[in-house]
Amino acid sequence: MKAVSLLVLAGAAIGFSGAASAQFAKPEDAIKYRKSALFVMQQHYARIGAMASGKAPFNAQAAADNAAIAEAMSKLPWAAFGDGTDLGDTKARPEIWKEQAKFKAAAEKMQSEMSKLAAATKTGNLDSIKTAFQSTSGSCKACHDDFRAK
Amino acid sequence: MKAVSLLVLAGAAIGFSGAASAQFAKPEDAIKYRKSALFVMQQHYARIGAMASGKAPFNAQAAADNAAIAEAMSKLPWAAFGDGTDLGDTKARPEIWKEQAKFKAAAEKMQSEMSKLAAATKTGNLDSIKTAFQSTSGSCKACHDDFRAK
Repeated sequence: MKAVSLLVLAGAAIGFSGAASAQFAKPEDAIKYRKSALFVMQQHYARIGAMASGKAPFNAQAAADNAAIAEAMSKLPWAAFGDGTDLGDTKARPEIWKEQAKFKAAAEKMQSEMSKLAAATKTGNLDSIKTAFQSTSGSCKACHDDFRAK
Repeated sequence: MKAVSLLVLAGAAIGFSGAASAQFAKPEDAIKYRKSALFVMQQHYARIGAMASGKAPFNAQAAADNAAIAEAMSKLPWAAFGDGTDLGDTKARPEIWKEQAKFKAAAEKMQSEMSKLAAATKTGNLDSIKTAFQSTSGSCKACHDDFRAK
């Protein structure tokens, strides 16, 4: 899990607070950054989903490779939800900033589920991967339901 | 360098050939993916640049953290330049597909320069970081000059 832990470190160094937004030249960059990181994550995540649902042939190495990237990407978006990034080309709901502790918990839940999925892919056991994928998807949906506009 | 090596592995597994584009549901997704990965990379890369140019105070840990992410991201875009991803919302020039070996070499040059930059940030020596940053920027520019529309 070295790959992830290093990126966790980086994510942690970048931080979660509004102050982190200072790292972005302008709010639009923060919005584009978090959408970009989430899109890259989703693309790799979907490849695991295709295997979990039988839409794509199961390849343990590909599942593990995609999960490693998805897990690393799952650490990145949060520093880009700083103060002043609530307006513009974003579906982010005001609740993200009104209920920061709840949003942080939801974001951390997804990250921990993604880490469990990455661990499951390392077992090469498709049933374990299916179970972990389902829980992870639940954490994505829960956060979207509460914090992303339709 | 475990973090990067794992993502290199993932990148390698995803591959560079046109066949890799089969991993994207539609060409638009491949285009959005490569732009997203490059944007995330650029954002972290720019933070090292700000330190290298003195626009931001030098923080060795932040430089290393940002370089680790930029290096990991540098492996991702290439699988998304598959066949059929030359049209649409992209500045990619036809030369990417007409001169694939040259494009692949330019992409690999950037990745190796980014790895050298990541290594330089680990030394904590700002002069080494400045030198590596300059060479890396040169590899970005060279590829953009040849393969990205103005």
